[in-house]
Amino acid sequence: MVKTIEWNAHGVRLIDQTILPQQKIFVECKTYKDMAEAISRMQIRGAPAIGIAGAFGVALGARQIQAGDFDDFYRQLDVVCRELNATRPTAVNLSWATDKMRKIALDNKHLPLQQLKDLLEAKAKEVLAEDIAANRRMGAYGCQFIKDGDTILTHCNAGALATGGYGTALGVIRVAHEEGKKIQVYADETRPFMQGTRLTAWELMEDGIPVTLNTDSMAGYLMSLGKINLVIVGADRIAGNGDTANKIGTYSVAILAKEHGIPFYVAAPLSTIDFKIRSGQQIEIEARSEKEVTHVGNTLLAPAGVKVFNPAFDVTPNKYITAIITDKGVAKPPYVENLAKLRD
Amino acid sequence: MVKTIEWNAHGVRLIDQTILPQQKIFVECKTYKDMAEAISRMQIRGAPAIGIAGAFGVALGARQIQAGDFDDFYRQLDVVCRELNATRPTAVNLSWATDKMRKIALDNKHLPLQQLKDLLEAKAKEVLAEDIAANRRMGAYGCQFIKDGDTILTHCNAGALATGGYGTALGVIRVAHEEGKKIQVYADETRPFMQGTRLTAWELMEDGIPVTLNTDSMAGYLMSLGKINLVIVGADRIAGNGDTANKIGTYSVAILAKEHGIPFYVAAPLSTIDFKIRSGQQIEIEARSEKEVTHVGNTLLAPAGVKVFNPAFDVTPNKYITAIITDKGVAKPPYVENLAKLRD
Repeated sequence: MVKTIEWNAHGVRLIDQTILPQQKIFVECKTYKDMAEAISRMQIRGAPAIGIAGAFGVALGARQIQAGDFDDFYRQLDVVCRELNATRPTAVNLSWATDKMRKIALDNKHLPLQQLKDLLEAKAKEVLAEDIAANRRMGAYGCQFIKDGDTILTHCNAGALATGGYGTALGVIRVAHEEGKKIQVYADETRPFMQGTRLTAWELMEDGIPVTLNTDSMAGYLMSLGKINLVIVGADRIAGNGDTANKIGTYSVAILAKEHGIPFYVAAPLSTIDFKIRSGQQIEIEARSEKEVTHVGNTLLAPAGVKVFNPAFDVTPNKYITAIITDKGVAKPPYVENLAKLRD
Repeated sequence: MVKTIEWNAHGVRLIDQTILPQQKIFVECKTYKDMAEAISRMQIRGAPAIGIAGAFGVALGARQIQAGDFDDFYRQLDVVCRELNATRPTAVNLSWATDKMRKIALDNKHLPLQQLKDLLEAKAKEVLAEDIAANRRMGAYGCQFIKDGDTILTHCNAGALATGGYGTALGVIRVAHEEGKKIQVYADETRPFMQGTRLTAWELMEDGIPVTLNTDSMAGYLMSLGKINLVIVGADRIAGNGDTANKIGTYSVAILAKEHGIPFYVAAPLSTIDFKIRSGQQIEIEARSEKEVTHVGNTLLAPAGVKVFNPAFDVTPNKYITAIITDKGVAKPPYVENLAKLRD
């Protein structure tokens, strides 16, 4: 299995996902600013993975802090957390992870600072280990929806590379495959950043799971041909009512699935659910660089100076979602009640 | 206005659309095989434009023929027509144009061969002139559907570059703009061949019509934000019942428009309607090279050896189409009756 991110003797090592699949190159993050840059540049991406990266970033930042007492330490840690949160505003996992680390610091303010720094590092490693365990539980809950012989469409990369190393949507698919179900996957290429082409196709091929690549524009046609039995995607943030922010294009796929009577599943750890917000309309949508749309690599494809629309995510209203698969169980509509039940 | 294709002293000159918008380079076709290659490589593309290219190709082929009598000439002309038809199997305009040229030859078999060759050249030029006139008529019929202040989504390039020089879908938009309506266009980039990015954005910017580029995956989200008032696309082949084959992804856009209550128009000359076929299920869908999906230019983005699905077109069933705008008037449902009325 791919080691998306790990703590080593020098700091944190992560696979540079902007270079896959042509080269497998690692980025070494020695400081929290290195980590903030890696997240911002999408060298690591995927909601759960950037949650882990956020926790590791806080642990790295804690190591860098020179402070005389806890209050001074915490004031500096707060700057670290805020800077990390600002790198990708849509993913709730980042603030979930930095909040968790902040709370650990506050709960252990009595410790000598060096011991507190060690504790934060240990807790960040736990976030990673727990993510992998959670993905496996999610896969176990979700694989009931996959039958032998099914063909599954997915969008973006909600796989090992988007998580600590197993995957949310692809984790469900992996469990079905491990159970011996003969399944196939169609991967939306996922413009503009091509996570489907570069990451999903690559990691499924590494695992020997049959995968076919298609442009995002082909999803409807594939469904009309009867080639798709179900859709599974991940999530970047889910509102308390089940409305789901995920990679741009997910909303279109959900509508296409509904029109063809195909079930549409979201797989995400419970930490992706932001119970503080009641609907998807409250989710801030990150706008990214125009260059992602106009260029491939450094090659300009569009006319110079063209205006561009490049939101990183869209929100799929709960009415299009057949079920939300979490690490604590499966929620079906009505989501306000049933997601709260999983939490409590 | 762009000169997409023209006859000159050396043969036929056309803009190489695979290189736009970075460079404006022309291809000179001296033989029908040059033309077949230009069509096949999509240096010229768009259903009406390849109809014109087909007629010009037949005229070039006729010039090359060494024959003793009409029967010998016609036998060779038939080879030329078949070879041109085979370059892009979905577009009906190619066989429409080559059939038309064939019929002109048969109707004028009494002429000396040199005169017959001159006549075929003159008739091919008429096809071009008539296309431009037809697009202007179509624009006049279609612009009733565009109100001042509207924002229009289009897919692929159904513009000057897809036609003799004015456009079908973009022709309707051009007429609205010429009438002084303040309109804006969102252009789907149109993966995998990027006609929206490279061609639609470019030709609208050339004409000073406000255009914003978006990936195909953003169309649904744009609609959900209330940014789109109507959709207009072109067509590669329309069945007698109105089912419309157009660039891959059109079907998805049509479903998204329906879900958001947005009207969806097809603009195409009556020659695009293939009355010989009764429904879209009879339309052959061209499969194109995997490289269009896996590579950008010569750069491989996908993992080596990945399986790819790359149909060039899809079929939008008539139930998703608000109206079909032709050069002979506008047809609304029921299409079987109302398209036949336009023809007769």
